[in-house]
Amino acid sequence: MGDGVLARLSIDTDLATQVLCGFIHDQTQKAGLPRAVIALSGGIDSALSAALAARALGTENVLAIRMPWRDSAPNSLADADLLIEALGLPALTVEITEMVLPLFERFPQMDRRRRGNIMARQRMIVSYDQSVAWGGLVMGTSNKTEFLLGYSTIYGDSGVALQPIADLYKAQVRQLAAALDLPQSILDKAPSADLWEGQTDEEELGFTYEQVDQVLYLLVDERYVVDEVVEEGFERNFVEDVWRRVKANHYNARLSNRALGHDFLYLRDWVG
Amino acid sequence: MGDGVLARLSIDTDLATQVLCGFIHDQTQKAGLPRAVIALSGGIDSALSAALAARALGTENVLAIRMPWRDSAPNSLADADLLIEALGLPALTVEITEMVLPLFERFPQMDRRRRGNIMARQRMIVSYDQSVAWGGLVMGTSNKTEFLLGYSTIYGDSGVALQPIADLYKAQVRQLAAALDLPQSILDKAPSADLWEGQTDEEELGFTYEQVDQVLYLLVDERYVVDEVVEEGFERNFVEDVWRRVKANHYNARLSNRALGHDFLYLRDWVG
Repeated sequence: MGDGVLARLSIDTDLATQVLCGFIHDQTQKAGLPRAVIALSGGIDSALSAALAARALGTENVLAIRMPWRDSAPNSLADADLLIEALGLPALTVEITEMVLPLFERFPQMDRRRRGNIMARQRMIVSYDQSVAWGGLVMGTSNKTEFLLGYSTIYGDSGVALQPIADLYKAQVRQLAAALDLPQSILDKAPSADLWEGQTDEEELGFTYEQVDQVLYLLVDERYVVDEVVEEGFERNFVEDVWRRVKANHYNARLSNRALGHDFLYLRDWVG
Repeated sequence: MGDGVLARLSIDTDLATQVLCGFIHDQTQKAGLPRAVIALSGGIDSALSAALAARALGTENVLAIRMPWRDSAPNSLADADLLIEALGLPALTVEITEMVLPLFERFPQMDRRRRGNIMARQRMIVSYDQSVAWGGLVMGTSNKTEFLLGYSTIYGDSGVALQPIADLYKAQVRQLAAALDLPQSILDKAPSADLWEGQTDEEELGFTYEQVDQVLYLLVDERYVVDEVVEEGFERNFVEDVWRRVKANHYNARLSNRALGHDFLYLRDWVG
């Protein structure tokens, strides 16, 4: 099931590196700020984004910001450090704990989703403030899978100046990160937004990235309808659930990302 | 000088009320959330936005949030209270002092602009969080003059779900607010972002809203070139300065506002 789809998802990593570094270089030049700040979570998405920015702009022009909160996993910070050392990036640590606690304490009934949004937005605030001091653009770290599923916070992690990896599915992020020789512990770990202890994206989503990437690729890039995806061997319930998510998050994604915006508009017209 | 321009800026307040209330009603219905949250500063823009929302959605569906910080002028809070009482809005006060101080103290060399951006973004965080609890959309309070001059913070006060007064110049905001019988002290006071004691917008901008509204109206709505505006009796230096600001803030404004976005794209094409 779907072996052929995985192969079609595979990218030419040399070409992708060249295109994405060119994009970062052009966008920062155009803005008159050939430097960048980037929030490093310790995960593979921000690691890849930072590695691409370092290649495009020069290591010394990319400020890595670590923004742990009280309950962040210690190995997230360690992985961020590993990358900072491997690339030789200038770095800064700003704890967001004292910034998030006033609202958490004022509204103790708040659920995990609201807490996660507040944390993502506090990190946006720190990144934008540091971008002024550093004289650089705020780089996003969201991938195409997350955008399509609505797995990002408006005015939070999607509140950035440019999105270098927003046209790469998670499988493509992994492929490119491996090709660029990112640290093994970052390549190997389970994707997590690190919003609470032991959180993993795949557990929260209820499916693996490998499964959902294939279905998204068929629905969005290849413009299959649900029935056609099912014919490729994917479970109907799963495909319909993914399609519902894509449609529900259409509006958010279009706001947060320009490149994806074009595909999305096309898709909306096509669905009618 | 420019008397004719002021007259052309004048709007039919009944029609404007009908159109803007219809917009608020339609947009909230479309989103499936026929309620709103709105940050009340005590100024005329947020007062007018709240009054329009209350007409469109019913007073009981509009949550007014006051978000003072330690050094906010006491009369700002008093004016917000006056409006809340006059309209009969449900209301909440969330001080942002404890949320902004960690960054202010960590980076004490930060200038007033960076501080202002952090405050605007903390208010966005509170508004978006309360919009979940309230089940409503976050309403913006920025006017067309501010957008064109870049007098708003990306992912801060411009980080909202809909912008009811973004197509009204400041002069038109004043006209409509008077027609809707907003409290006199709100109608009379000097516009201020209340970021530091005694701040007024006009002092910071270096010109009055009455002057700049006329020049903006001619440049943007009437598509005059600089020379043509000067022929109407405005000082060349002033007109050129305004035009520079409009062009420099083009990118921000286009991101933050969709209705204005269309005019802006047109304008960009026209300038070449």
